[in-house]
Amino acid sequence: MEKTMDKIVALSKARGFVYPGSEIYGGLANTWDYGNLGVELKNNVKQAWWKKFVQENPYNVGVDCAILMNPQTWVASGHLGGFSDPLMDCRECHERFRADKLIEDFCEEKGIEIEGSVDAWSQEKMKGFIEEHQIPCPTCGKHNFTDIRQFNLMFKTFQGVTEDAKNTVYLRPETAQGIFVNFKNVQRTSRKKIPFGIGQIGKSFRNEITPGNFTFRTREFEQMELEFFCEPGTDLEWFAYWKQFCLDWLKNLGMKEDEMRARDHAQEELCFYSKATTDIEFLFPFGWGELWGVADRTDYDLTQHQEVSGQDMSYFDDEKKEKYVPYVIEPSLGADRVVLAFLCSAYDEEELEGGDMRTVLHFHPAIAPVKIGVLPLSKKLNEGAEKVFASLSKNYNCEFDDRGNIGKRYRRQDEIGTPFCVTYDFDSETDGAVTVRDRDTMEQERVKIEDLAQYFAEKFAY
Amino acid sequence: MEKTMDKIVALSKARGFVYPGSEIYGGLANTWDYGNLGVELKNNVKQAWWKKFVQENPYNVGVDCAILMNPQTWVASGHLGGFSDPLMDCRECHERFRADKLIEDFCEEKGIEIEGSVDAWSQEKMKGFIEEHQIPCPTCGKHNFTDIRQFNLMFKTFQGVTEDAKNTVYLRPETAQGIFVNFKNVQRTSRKKIPFGIGQIGKSFRNEITPGNFTFRTREFEQMELEFFCEPGTDLEWFAYWKQFCLDWLKNLGMKEDEMRARDHAQEELCFYSKATTDIEFLFPFGWGELWGVADRTDYDLTQHQEVSGQDMSYFDDEKKEKYVPYVIEPSLGADRVVLAFLCSAYDEEELEGGDMRTVLHFHPAIAPVKIGVLPLSKKLNEGAEKVFASLSKNYNCEFDDRGNIGKRYRRQDEIGTPFCVTYDFDSETDGAVTVRDRDTMEQERVKIEDLAQYFAEKFAY
Repeated sequence: MEKTMDKIVALSKARGFVYPGSEIYGGLANTWDYGNLGVELKNNVKQAWWKKFVQENPYNVGVDCAILMNPQTWVASGHLGGFSDPLMDCRECHERFRADKLIEDFCEEKGIEIEGSVDAWSQEKMKGFIEEHQIPCPTCGKHNFTDIRQFNLMFKTFQGVTEDAKNTVYLRPETAQGIFVNFKNVQRTSRKKIPFGIGQIGKSFRNEITPGNFTFRTREFEQMELEFFCEPGTDLEWFAYWKQFCLDWLKNLGMKEDEMRARDHAQEELCFYSKATTDIEFLFPFGWGELWGVADRTDYDLTQHQEVSGQDMSYFDDEKKEKYVPYVIEPSLGADRVVLAFLCSAYDEEELEGGDMRTVLHFHPAIAPVKIGVLPLSKKLNEGAEKVFASLSKNYNCEFDDRGNIGKRYRRQDEIGTPFCVTYDFDSETDGAVTVRDRDTMEQERVKIEDLAQYFAEKFAY
Repeated sequence: MEKTMDKIVALSKARGFVYPGSEIYGGLANTWDYGNLGVELKNNVKQAWWKKFVQENPYNVGVDCAILMNPQTWVASGHLGGFSDPLMDCRECHERFRADKLIEDFCEEKGIEIEGSVDAWSQEKMKGFIEEHQIPCPTCGKHNFTDIRQFNLMFKTFQGVTEDAKNTVYLRPETAQGIFVNFKNVQRTSRKKIPFGIGQIGKSFRNEITPGNFTFRTREFEQMELEFFCEPGTDLEWFAYWKQFCLDWLKNLGMKEDEMRARDHAQEELCFYSKATTDIEFLFPFGWGELWGVADRTDYDLTQHQEVSGQDMSYFDDEKKEKYVPYVIEPSLGADRVVLAFLCSAYDEEELEGGDMRTVLHFHPAIAPVKIGVLPLSKKLNEGAEKVFASLSKNYNCEFDDRGNIGKRYRRQDEIGTPFCVTYDFDSETDGAVTVRDRDTMEQERVKIEDLAQYFAEKFAY
């Protein structure tokens, strides 16, 4: 079975996982809307993250900060100064390119080995490389580029009536800064002692020049970030702890070992303030793509905010009678990316006994958008089946389906990844039991209706 | 007991419900961040809405659409043309005002009765009224205003490199339009028949001139909207159904009858396309404020999108063999507002036996940010108490507190609205039981640790 992006995109659109954004108006540059199944899948993934990173974790608490922040935030974080793409235009055909991408694509095509990541190069180094190799324009083939100029990736807007510098605000390019500026607030109100972490889920925006690969890279996206504050010197231990925690989270939700890898950054790849960084990547049909960045950011962020705001960002350790600016471990996950990864990972086409094929999404039960399909064998049985549906719906997102033969209905539920189907048949009226079918094994067992609550509580424990 | 906004705001900041946004930088014009308790409260309210309006409801499904939409959307919805505030400046002191607010405040001060809502008046009528009554500038007292001009309330930004009209996009001012443009997509992929509804929770943005009243009116806010599609002619029935459904939802989460009212719009107050509208309001410390707008919007929205996009937005009724553009009932709820309402509603100060006072938040268990406080009577008992905490944390957001005497710890949990405290004492080591204290009655009962799961499952059933 060949797993392609075309198949994933087509299934997403056909079954209501993801539609093109603003589709009736011809869309809007790589925006996407989550449909009736997609919203459930994404919410489940977000809740699974929150459950393991915040609710169950004795160290961590959460926050939910505004997207619009005081612009000084972006002075301190460096986003106003340095968060930009190196752009150049072709003077012949007026096409616009990212210089680093141009170099990477050229080197890949020509089989040229390059050191580290091109986006870490200086502007001069990129320009020199493009000249030296006389890299041609990918559109017209000529070599006649403008100078490289930096394009800031933050979306800007105006708050208030006049559109001037005084009223300029930015859509946050990451959720992390909302956590940093609230470090003292959360420490005070939660009464947490170091080490402790603050998690957040929310939308961020980056004015990417080349979004693409379906929902993998979009201008508007959702992040699940944890900033974990610890004592300097204990940071590399905590870095290892959170890296493993992230890998375990993915594995426990069904991601396979051979689809994921942790790529440690080499010394020369690291940001100047980072002591260690790992990218956790997933093997998408289009290649390896980053899901999670786990970084030891030292005291860089809090120190920056301390300098720019003039507010004390240090922590006083009661027991050791010591004051310090905590170090930070940041596991930062893209929600849309990991949803896409789970979708790709779950996708399968299987040949059944008898030669029929089925498309099936092997979602972990915790993230499956529909938990239970409730299927009356005949429309005559709808009344009894609806009672079962109403009772199960109290705890699970269920789907009621009385259309078509039972085999077709099983196929439909397989294709959207429903882990269990409950079939209400003529015997149910007398024996008070239903048939429960397992999506993966396709085995069926008879369960008393009164035992269903307990039965599913065990199946869906997470 | 006097319930004031000052007390609510102070408690919010002290205990981690809501902090001023970007506080270390002096804030940003009425933005707010939800703290470690606020995020849990808000998530619980959103989940309670989703559970009752989407998961359990056999008619409805959900979506999650992008904030950035094709600008044609706002042509069709009327937001580009008509979504604006009437502004005027004082020529003497250069202060800026909303003309409708100026009139309303003036009339309230002078005891002048006015017909309907001023914001529905024409620009000419407002100007005439201000002239006729020689309304003075509230700041400098002179009467010398500029003309009224319309200021569009949508935040605008630029997608892509150049800041020109071609690249202008808007932050959505409401989530509803994402539902309308996807009406056909969702109907197709969910295989729903009319009547059915589509719900969505998400951020919206309005460049309000005068945000205020804490989190009641903010420029960035979250909505929980349902668009319910039905056959023309059945709409008023469904309007009544959803109006009652909304009121019941609030009541079932503990809102009291005398704090809420449904205010039906008079005929002259209705938008030209609406057949009926009701505002569900809550009595905040600052007065009645709208939580929910429930409106019969007829086929206005789908027809507008059909005209502007050229796409067919009608529905074909299989059974009746009829084609029509569905009517829409829209219950639209502000998430931040209803969270604030629940916070105000829950707030109480009570005199205890012995004369001590306690501040208590009487949250419904379903929305309480911390469900269970786990309190070891002595630090010597932490090991056993931590086991109880770990096991309860699998299903509930719990707080572990071993600091201070037990009475103080109860007070702390009362003040954040924790419905139950579990005290692990020296007997627990031998009898395998704990004391469960009820926040509201302050009564205590002894429960076996092995029975806690079932005990709380019943207490938290929602």
